[in-house]
Amino acid sequence: MLFDIHADKLKEECGIYGIYSRGNNVALSTYWGLYALQHRGQESAGIAVTDGREMVIQRGMGLVNEVFRAELPSLPGHIGIGHVRYSTTGSSLLINTQPLMVSYSGGKLSLAHNGNLTNAHKLRSELEKMGSVFQTSIDSEVLVNLIARSAKSTIEDRVIETLDKVEGAYCLVVMSQDKLIGVRDPHGFRPLCLGKLNGGWVLASESCALDTVGAELIRDIEPGEMVVIDDSGLRSIKYAPDNRLALCIFEYIYFSRPDSIIDGQSVYQARVQMGRQLARESGFKADLVISVPDSGTPAAIGFSYESGIPFAEGLMKNRYIGRTFIQPEQKNRDLGVRIKLNAVRSVVKDKSIIMVDDSIVRGTTSGKIVKMLKEAGAKAVHMCVSSPPIGFPCYYGIDTSVRKELIAASKNVEQIREFIGADSLYYLSLEGLHKSIQNVNYGNMCYACFNSDYPAQIPCQGQCDSNKYVFEQTHGT
Amino acid sequence: MLFDIHADKLKEECGIYGIYSRGNNVALSTYWGLYALQHRGQESAGIAVTDGREMVIQRGMGLVNEVFRAELPSLPGHIGIGHVRYSTTGSSLLINTQPLMVSYSGGKLSLAHNGNLTNAHKLRSELEKMGSVFQTSIDSEVLVNLIARSAKSTIEDRVIETLDKVEGAYCLVVMSQDKLIGVRDPHGFRPLCLGKLNGGWVLASESCALDTVGAELIRDIEPGEMVVIDDSGLRSIKYAPDNRLALCIFEYIYFSRPDSIIDGQSVYQARVQMGRQLARESGFKADLVISVPDSGTPAAIGFSYESGIPFAEGLMKNRYIGRTFIQPEQKNRDLGVRIKLNAVRSVVKDKSIIMVDDSIVRGTTSGKIVKMLKEAGAKAVHMCVSSPPIGFPCYYGIDTSVRKELIAASKNVEQIREFIGADSLYYLSLEGLHKSIQNVNYGNMCYACFNSDYPAQIPCQGQCDSNKYVFEQTHGT
Amino acid sequence: MLFDIHADKLKEECGIYGIYSRGNNVALSTYWGLYALQHRGQESAGIAVTDGREMVIQRGMGLVNEVFRAELPSLPGHIGIGHVRYSTTGSSLLINTQPLMVSYSGGKLSLAHNGNLTNAHKLRSELEKMGSVFQTSIDSEVLVNLIARSAKSTIEDRVIETLDKVEGAYCLVVMSQDKLIGVRDPHGFRPLCLGKLNGGWVLASESCALDTVGAELIRDIEPGEMVVIDDSGLRSIKYAPDNRLALCIFEYIYFSRPDSIIDGQSVYQARVQMGRQLARESGFKADLVISVPDSGTPAAIGFSYESGIPFAEGLMKNRYIGRTFIQPEQKNRDLGVRIKLNAVRSVVKDKSIIMVDDSIVRGTTSGKIVKMLKEAGAKAVHMCVSSPPIGFPCYYGIDTSVRKELIAASKNVEQIREFIGADSLYYLSLEGLHKSIQNVNYGNMCYACFNSDYPAQIPCQGQCDSNKYVFEQTHGT
Amino acid sequence: MLFDIHADKLKEECGIYGIYSRGNNVALSTYWGLYALQHRGQESAGIAVTDGREMVIQRGMGLVNEVFRAELPSLPGHIGIGHVRYSTTGSSLLINTQPLMVSYSGGKLSLAHNGNLTNAHKLRSELEKMGSVFQTSIDSEVLVNLIARSAKSTIEDRVIETLDKVEGAYCLVVMSQDKLIGVRDPHGFRPLCLGKLNGGWVLASESCALDTVGAELIRDIEPGEMVVIDDSGLRSIKYAPDNRLALCIFEYIYFSRPDSIIDGQSVYQARVQMGRQLARESGFKADLVISVPDSGTPAAIGFSYESGIPFAEGLMKNRYIGRTFIQPEQKNRDLGVRIKLNAVRSVVKDKSIIMVDDSIVRGTTSGKIVKMLKEAGAKAVHMCVSSPPIGFPCYYGIDTSVRKELIAASKNVEQIREFIGADSLYYLSLEGLHKSIQNVNYGNMCYACFNSDYPAQIPCQGQCDSNKYVFEQTHGT
Repeated sequence: MLFDIHADKLKEECGIYGIYSRGNNVALSTYWGLYALQHRGQESAGIAVTDGREMVIQRGMGLVNEVFRAELPSLPGHIGIGHVRYSTTGSSLLINTQPLMVSYSGGKLSLAHNGNLTNAHKLRSELEKMGSVFQTSIDSEVLVNLIARSAKSTIEDRVIETLDKVEGAYCLVVMSQDKLIGVRDPHGFRPLCLGKLNGGWVLASESCALDTVGAELIRDIEPGEMVVIDDSGLRSIKYAPDNRLALCIFEYIYFSRPDSIIDGQSVYQARVQMGRQLARESGFKADLVISVPDSGTPAAIGFSYESGIPFAEGLMKNRYIGRTFIQPEQKNRDLGVRIKLNAVRSVVKDKSIIMVDDSIVRGTTSGKIVKMLKEAGAKAVHMCVSSPPIGFPCYYGIDTSVRKELIAASKNVEQIREFIGADSLYYLSLEGLHKSIQNVNYGNMCYACFNSDYPAQIPCQGQCDSNKYVFEQTHGT
Repeated sequence: MLFDIHADKLKEECGIYGIYSRGNNVALSTYWGLYALQHRGQESAGIAVTDGREMVIQRGMGLVNEVFRAELPSLPGHIGIGHVRYSTTGSSLLINTQPLMVSYSGGKLSLAHNGNLTNAHKLRSELEKMGSVFQTSIDSEVLVNLIARSAKSTIEDRVIETLDKVEGAYCLVVMSQDKLIGVRDPHGFRPLCLGKLNGGWVLASESCALDTVGAELIRDIEPGEMVVIDDSGLRSIKYAPDNRLALCIFEYIYFSRPDSIIDGQSVYQARVQMGRQLARESGFKADLVISVPDSGTPAAIGFSYESGIPFAEGLMKNRYIGRTFIQPEQKNRDLGVRIKLNAVRSVVKDKSIIMVDDSIVRGTTSGKIVKMLKEAGAKAVHMCVSSPPIGFPCYYGIDTSVRKELIAASKNVEQIREFIGADSLYYLSLEGLHKSIQNVNYGNMCYACFNSDYPAQIPCQGQCDSNKYVFEQTHGT
Repeated sequence: MLFDIHADKLKEECGIYGIYSRGNNVALSTYWGLYALQHRGQESAGIAVTDGREMVIQRGMGLVNEVFRAELPSLPGHIGIGHVRYSTTGSSLLINTQPLMVSYSGGKLSLAHNGNLTNAHKLRSELEKMGSVFQTSIDSEVLVNLIARSAKSTIEDRVIETLDKVEGAYCLVVMSQDKLIGVRDPHGFRPLCLGKLNGGWVLASESCALDTVGAELIRDIEPGEMVVIDDSGLRSIKYAPDNRLALCIFEYIYFSRPDSIIDGQSVYQARVQMGRQLARESGFKADLVISVPDSGTPAAIGFSYESGIPFAEGLMKNRYIGRTFIQPEQKNRDLGVRIKLNAVRSVVKDKSIIMVDDSIVRGTTSGKIVKMLKEAGAKAVHMCVSSPPIGFPCYYGIDTSVRKELIAASKNVEQIREFIGADSLYYLSLEGLHKSIQNVNYGNMCYACFNSDYPAQIPCQGQCDSNKYVFEQTHGT
Repeated sequence: MLFDIHADKLKEECGIYGIYSRGNNVALSTYWGLYALQHRGQESAGIAVTDGREMVIQRGMGLVNEVFRAELPSLPGHIGIGHVRYSTTGSSLLINTQPLMVSYSGGKLSLAHNGNLTNAHKLRSELEKMGSVFQTSIDSEVLVNLIARSAKSTIEDRVIETLDKVEGAYCLVVMSQDKLIGVRDPHGFRPLCLGKLNGGWVLASESCALDTVGAELIRDIEPGEMVVIDDSGLRSIKYAPDNRLALCIFEYIYFSRPDSIIDGQSVYQARVQMGRQLARESGFKADLVISVPDSGTPAAIGFSYESGIPFAEGLMKNRYIGRTFIQPEQKNRDLGVRIKLNAVRSVVKDKSIIMVDDSIVRGTTSGKIVKMLKEAGAKAVHMCVSSPPIGFPCYYGIDTSVRKELIAASKNVEQIREFIGADSLYYLSLEGLHKSIQNVNYGNMCYACFNSDYPAQIPCQGQCDSNKYVFEQTHGT
């Protein structure tokens, strides 16, 4: 069994991208858009393109530049959608890659999905009772079956009828032979933004993808909004009322790229504010503030701003970490972190250090980093975390396979401090976190992983075997 | 565009294999069974296995030993099915590989299909109208949707209800979590035989696969018969009356391996008889009888037996021909045949030759071989073909992409002789062909490609775009 | 450990090809030439081409169509050489692929070699003492070092000086920036022939390669002859006197393609004569003569001619056997042969059979085939071998890794018959073999593996560790 | 033609690693050591290991985790060396990968080399005149030939005799069957350090590799020093007097990892000092200091420390940039930078910015970044470079293929400022740079790329075709 050196982080599920640009071939733009969203999923990637008649798709396991190493979908087409998916160990299956492309009574359809439907098993079971067959284990296949079974005549009405039935978190891009549709669920759990490019329209999980393809950020898709793009332009349909707004707070803490603007709030600035707040709340003093790169850096800089304690790079990251593994015979498990991170001895030696990280999941990595800093001569390591303790699982699209292993589910802060060997440990308060994110357009957020206040239905517990439909083995690429 | 050096032959569509062997792991047996059926399809291969609870599948493009180079499906399982698919240029898609595996209201199901449903488009269209979605362009997806929509409670009743709706040619192996089902259509277009191995049961397109895995040939599945195998043993269900028996005559002429016994008739002996009959009918005299290897050899030997003219190997085949191509800039198109075949000069020089081949499709290859023999010094080349002229397309599972190019559709025998440059040309008569195959258990055969007497409904012509559902690009290997 | 299903045959070491064709790009011709020589080596392939200035090379592990799957060496060049190498288990190394290309004081040089130098270790040791370094474990590296150290000014004189020092078996093609050189050793152990193509010249191990590329066979290179081809044409140099002529007899028995003409003798006709002689010598009677395909077929046909006993195809070969393996857990070792060969039950049932094969090495395969025929109902199996018992190792380029396993080294004919379970066993006599090959231009042959009469020096025994220089591991393509 | 998005940086040539650890298998440690040195070369990687008798090697094109994806050299061995090589476009050849492994009169030998011999062509030419052949185009092959030709008896004496003849820059690790040797040239151009691990010894280009494998940094190898490690321990030999000490200054500016300590000087602290010095020299004032990540960050932090201007992350880097390419039809060349970097709008909008980068090579990337910042709303962009203008090529191991394209070779600072569109531009002075690096153990440094004061002989100019020996094509892995 291999050891996943990136295991100690929450995992985003997906990133999606869509483009409608009459007169242009959009496959390359979709490729670059996915490239910019790669941090949202490294397991698989796919692109579907239509020229109004034919629809082609190309999907594969791996990073965007691995899947499309040889060539992009070659059909000239002016509508395209793309998807990247995260990597877990074991259940990553070629057949589960997205977008999903089907033919149905209305023609051809492709769909890509970011999020998690909390009633997918129930819907799937109902569809099976009506005679549907399922070839994958992804929620998207439930969605396309519902769309296909809708009695409505237009694709947008079919999608709306489908969304009336689903619960949970989703952002979708849907492509028919002549329309591109973008949808964000009524809670607004996952982000989706709209951009303009050469007279065409772009949809993307994050605005960094718009920047990369050269599109201008127009606005975010609102919770409960559907946009329909075709040759007559863009129409907005409010298909559902806002329903307890609940953007995933972790988009600001960790998932999104710092250069993205999500619902009007700069991710970078949110993180800097979390760092400032941490400084105020913790009152920690030390010689230096360092970050666990790269995600902890903006908060560490914010801490430095607020506290006046100098920021330095005390940990260096190996930029060539891929999906590397350590062979089983490897005795020294500390190697896992040493390969990824190294202490900068000249920075930390004989210094008291405030180390800022965005979150603690299992705590094992944090413990190894503290040990590494001490071995490099740090006098003291005070750890500051720019989010509250994660004590509850997520049902809206974040990998919860580590549920049992959430350290904050079974230990209090002092016990965690002892576990990781830090001299002090401070978690940002929920209020402090909330205060740090004040510019969000669409209201409240989902803090359920901190306080178990779930904004939407959660699925049946225990009796739902989430692996039920995972049935295909992959073999060598 | 590449030049396919095997293009001048009819192409079988598929080979299928199934095994039920309580207490044994059947993945390896399925692998070897497919290996023996490789001549029936070289484009893709797949194996699905179940242990009664889980069901796993592994599929890929390429030969059996390429798809399973790394490893076989690792699930221990006592039921398995497998499939090999033929190779065409262009439309070979990973998503179209078989078996198909789905989950539906009745559990999990895998299915592999050899043949061609003549009403698949109509059924698919009806299913789409009822809300089904299709992710592939293969008939098997129509079948699994019909099975899933059946109101019957057992898998065998669901399959029977499904088969009541389909027309055309099919042999199927279907696997649920506890049963293996084998079906042969009421016309018996395609072969399917039953064997016994270590107390378990094996189904295979040809008996050579039984020999390879060490199973004993018990009998052929009868037209209109379904066999259901589970822990209580094997049950036979006559789900439809025999319906104008019509085993594809080309199984004896060319498709099947000579060491197979199809419907009680040895393929090898049938070919020897065709050769004997050719000798009687043609009355050709010459110094030597040679074959176009390998498929023409048994008939050439039969010709030699009957005529007393010595048999010799006048053409040698390169045993390492794979899916080789000639690059487009290649001027000398004759190279295509020279790479595959070479005349044995010492055999043919100054000799009059009777050259026996199984069939002529386009005639281009035959022409090049005649030229090659003459350049090697043959005094005369008299060509004998162990089947009548192919003038009509097949709708029951044989590649008819060459339809327009069938030389016998537009030329009479004398014109064909002139085209290929032979000194004489004789085609076996339909009566002679029929007489050569006298031991067949299940009655009459399909001769439609010779005489257009189609035993079953043929699909709508022209308006059915067979490429309609071919939409995914493959990449990588 | 894997089980090699082709293990029970002697292995040729290599095939070589060279072409000089001013005004044409020769890479493609070299590719097709190697394709026709693929039976002489399946482990690796390589092509080197020069346009008179630059010299490029492309090499890899695998079959010709695998190594050059993507593209041929792209340099336009009018001189080219190529090489195919045989496959053994374990010691197949990328670094040992040929041709070898070096730069030295005289410019650039490529060289490909078929055969085995019996004093290579001694020469290599001397070269090392003079300061040479070796990066491979192939004899060719000794040759290029000797060529580079020669004080002569022309490449042909350098080669001649080199050949004065080497002993053993070799055919070489050597390419400088302006010359193509072909050499055959003074014993003529290995074949090399000369052809003409579009005003250019072709050298190849066998004439079937000339046929494939469309070249005309002019003659064989004589033992002790060097041909030098450049813009002024072809010059022949008799660089050494004939020295006990000794073409490897196994070229006629098994190695060469039947459509090749080696030293003026048709390989096919030689094998037919061996079969006739077998019939005369053995006096065996039976219902049928069959062959172990494909190499035994011409002799079986000859046996049939002479005896009047009908020839039939009693064993069918799977045409898709690649470098397949059986996994170690495989209990039933008989599977190895069943995958490759299958008895044609309808042919052999209730018949007494004469089975003709070209040779017996270990005897294990023969035993399994006899068993298979009996299980298929053969009344009696009388085995005839178209060569004498192989009791001695070869030092001139044939794989002798099976030395200890030569069944005839430790068992007499009756014991072998018992081991393989045949009802009778007859080996062709040495005299009968000799008589069958009467048209050879260059005199006598090497029969050392039958009678230990080695025509040339053999290497030190025992103390020479042939694995001494095998040091590089290969890894996955 | 593809567009290399990393093209606008100088390229290090190589990283080397060696380990001697009696009783342990060192292949895995070598793998992790190379992993930590991956930034020094991404083109190819190789590992050679010996157990005292056998020596095996595994090499390939690509990153360390690509080359060793399947498995590490499997020989148990206690001595190992490894090498990573940089990536250029076009001339990257499998045959040129290192280490080089040869057999010679003294046994087996592996060697890996970082640097560039300035008299390699002359030495190679002399060796060819003495009869040596060359299969690669790398300097290492010259070295092994000189070692092999030495009349000395021990490997260390052979190496010393060899080093007497070579000029230029080199660090070497050499492995015989019982010794590990490390060498640093008398000028000390390239770094090489020594560490201790479990009683064994480790040699590495940078100390970050020691940290990664858990070894303790003992000291740097001195210029002109050879260390010989065997079972009797470590011996140091001063084989040449220090000769105008000249560590490459770019190791501190850009090449080495910030967490490395080179010749006693922390790379991170050197860069911070450069930033401080830049602040003092430039006197620039602005709202914010940002860096071009990642290499510019420590200097930007130093600038912030000294100036009191806050440091912020104004540019975000895509962490998934691999060897991605932009297809030729791509019209918008600016995309190249946008894929790699993105401005953080919320940081830079309406701000005056000091942007710190480590160097400017062509200037094209800098220009695009300035434009990107201005488009994101920056009021002013003042660029500070933590090194002087690069006006002269390097002959000691840095890729100088961009020689003609060095912007500072043809433009003065004001012209460069105009070219890149910055509001101000300041380069660190040579004195300032020198002052920033004050803790170096081994004296002076090489500044030749700034001031053309070459510390050692430079090679013949113009007439030496560096591509002369590049002759093998690579093909797809």
